[in-house]
Amino acid sequence: MKKKKPVIEILIAGDEILSDPVREKNAQFIAESLRAAGFDIEFITITGDNIHNLSGALKHSSRRADIVLVTGGLGPTSDDRTVEAFAAAFGLNLVLHEKSLKRIEALFRQRNRKMSDSNRKQAMIPEGASALENPIGTAPGIYSHIGHTDYYFMPGVPAEMEKIFGETILPKIVSEYEHEERDIEILRLTGITESELYDKIGSIGGAKESVRYYPGLEGITLKIVTAGQSAPAAKEIGSEIIETVGDIVFSSAGESLEEVVGDLLRERGMTVSAAESCTGGRIMNRLTKIPGSSDYVLAGVVAYSNESKRNILGVDKGMIETFGAVSAEVAGAMSEGVRRISGADIGISTTGIAGPGGGSAEKPVGLMYTGISTAKGTETKKLQFVEDRLINMGIMSQAVLNILRYSLINMR
Amino acid sequence: MKKKKPVIEILIAGDEILSDPVREKNAQFIAESLRAAGFDIEFITITGDNIHNLSGALKHSSRRADIVLVTGGLGPTSDDRTVEAFAAAFGLNLVLHEKSLKRIEALFRQRNRKMSDSNRKQAMIPEGASALENPIGTAPGIYSHIGHTDYYFMPGVPAEMEKIFGETILPKIVSEYEHEERDIEILRLTGITESELYDKIGSIGGAKESVRYYPGLEGITLKIVTAGQSAPAAKEIGSEIIETVGDIVFSSAGESLEEVVGDLLRERGMTVSAAESCTGGRIMNRLTKIPGSSDYVLAGVVAYSNESKRNILGVDKGMIETFGAVSAEVAGAMSEGVRRISGADIGISTTGIAGPGGGSAEKPVGLMYTGISTAKGTETKKLQFVEDRLINMGIMSQAVLNILRYSLINMR
Repeated sequence: MKKKKPVIEILIAGDEILSDPVREKNAQFIAESLRAAGFDIEFITITGDNIHNLSGALKHSSRRADIVLVTGGLGPTSDDRTVEAFAAAFGLNLVLHEKSLKRIEALFRQRNRKMSDSNRKQAMIPEGASALENPIGTAPGIYSHIGHTDYYFMPGVPAEMEKIFGETILPKIVSEYEHEERDIEILRLTGITESELYDKIGSIGGAKESVRYYPGLEGITLKIVTAGQSAPAAKEIGSEIIETVGDIVFSSAGESLEEVVGDLLRERGMTVSAAESCTGGRIMNRLTKIPGSSDYVLAGVVAYSNESKRNILGVDKGMIETFGAVSAEVAGAMSEGVRRISGADIGISTTGIAGPGGGSAEKPVGLMYTGISTAKGTETKKLQFVEDRLINMGIMSQAVLNILRYSLINMR
Repeated sequence: MKKKKPVIEILIAGDEILSDPVREKNAQFIAESLRAAGFDIEFITITGDNIHNLSGALKHSSRRADIVLVTGGLGPTSDDRTVEAFAAAFGLNLVLHEKSLKRIEALFRQRNRKMSDSNRKQAMIPEGASALENPIGTAPGIYSHIGHTDYYFMPGVPAEMEKIFGETILPKIVSEYEHEERDIEILRLTGITESELYDKIGSIGGAKESVRYYPGLEGITLKIVTAGQSAPAAKEIGSEIIETVGDIVFSSAGESLEEVVGDLLRERGMTVSAAESCTGGRIMNRLTKIPGSSDYVLAGVVAYSNESKRNILGVDKGMIETFGAVSAEVAGAMSEGVRRISGADIGISTTGIAGPGGGSAEKPVGLMYTGISTAKGTETKKLQFVEDRLINMGIMSQAVLNILRYSLINMR
């Protein structure tokens, strides 16, 4: 019979994490893996290499947790004191684990390097504990059971931790403890604010409990996680969200907007070029990040100066003088120009005032225009964003790629 | 007399942090501020909104810490239970803090919004505690002294936390507790690997203890932190590092490479344009991120297809056929072309195979060429990077901006 759902604590050891906690990514990996498998984390503790603190934290965790997942401090140097601290906390002796020592010796021979005494330390484990194989590093993982608590020790090196946790520890926890069957669905949306979205979908059955919002400059990611039989499954909630908000959902497979646009271009057999002013190359940068994008991206022009708008893109001098460089007319002409000089099927463009300088009462910071030119003609759109330069460049690149997406959807 | 250097714990409350610890940035802000002020963090605990867990964690912290800095759980909703958990942990009553209630009421009147009962909860503080003014939000901070431990409670909203911590809590801690006088110096370098750098500067007096390395695609940042009279000051170690490694240090003021290049262009009164193939707009994107860059950046061309290299940049068709698009000759011609069509003083270019596809035995993935063209002539350089597309695009943009920096330094 399985044991009831456990209280789980993650314990991270390392001075470097205490002074720079944002560098810590292991807790995230462990928490996400456990959440997907139907478990929850109740405590995360970060402590340094100080043996007194580390041993106190290990001891305290036995009072509140059924499972303690420890990362870090299994290396060969004098800073790596996790095993020593654990032995001190519970009055255990350390014993040599012959099989691990042989593995470490073999690894060094294989790499043609000399093994130092400090590596021998990595084969010492607490009495009564068992070693967990580390297929890619020297330090084995360690499992030890104290009172009602399972302790798992893993190296802090992410690749080694992920291997030991994913291949050995997680399957063991899943087989031993009760957990919820969970269903996970991820949607990505753009062109809506978080609060507008919440107003629209917040009342969908099950959404309040199971949907989490992750807003960013490149749209909103929704993570839908459901558990148990009574709740509607994540997929069902996801479908209802898509039905409610429509095609502002650009992906239900975790893709970025530029990947979705790239797929559409490839499907339609079409090519694109971009003429950017206020976005300064960000649109091209996003499109060309995708492997194989040279199949459908032909060229980009960042026309920062008025001269380059004229000389490279062929925008009429009189048009710039009459309407200004930041205008629907110039945006249209830029998209036509880049389409013409590159021979692409679609030309897109941006012109605007990214800030912080360059604004006026008539044309404030954040005012931007985009143009899209195809064989069927040219359309332009006016947008007004905020005061911040980097936010403006980010939101505008997102808005233009989204306009390109709609235009490709309507071309079928 | 000041109390001796304290043991400090940070306690973060919130279910959303437990399942996504990487979203937590408050601990980083607090740890960095305290480190700069001469204090160290010994524990960081993350717990959810579960009142039993939270109250247990608060109680345990009184046994090991002199100062506990708590963030989160001061909001108006039923998930916000930090104050309640604290009162339960130490058997305290909650009392209404009249002044805070008046402030909250005034805030709602000012914003023309109706105050709910749940906001009244935010004015309840534990008996014996004092409220810390929150100049930008509804929830006041709270200070309470239990046994030998100072508890400080702050909202989880970063802007409010930073305000209360920076303006009220940090000065109070600094005035009450002993701490080390610390000296901090930040250097940024590029064009060297972390291990090469360590080999060169590791033996500089004081470097081993005080220098931390933060490598990334945009170079290495060194943080030098020294304390006390006996150690050489950070500035001294920084100068010795600069003497040893020379002008691969591009900033000792925390600037990015594109800012340094922008400053040099402005000083020399020169303009630049870029013709990018394998970097796909990343160089232009980095240059134009900087406010005011329109003063010295004229234009960029992302010439992804061979046709655009010919039609827009005027690269000779025969040259592409003879040497291939990925060649020193084409890189040179691209830099000359973009300089000519935009009228810039300097033209820079990239052409190469970013990967993952497109490589051959003769021209493998990661092979890249750059050109730089000025009134004095054109130079090219061959570089060989790795298998990964995004890493290649990142390192190449860094390498080219660094070549531009050297070229500008030598122009004076």
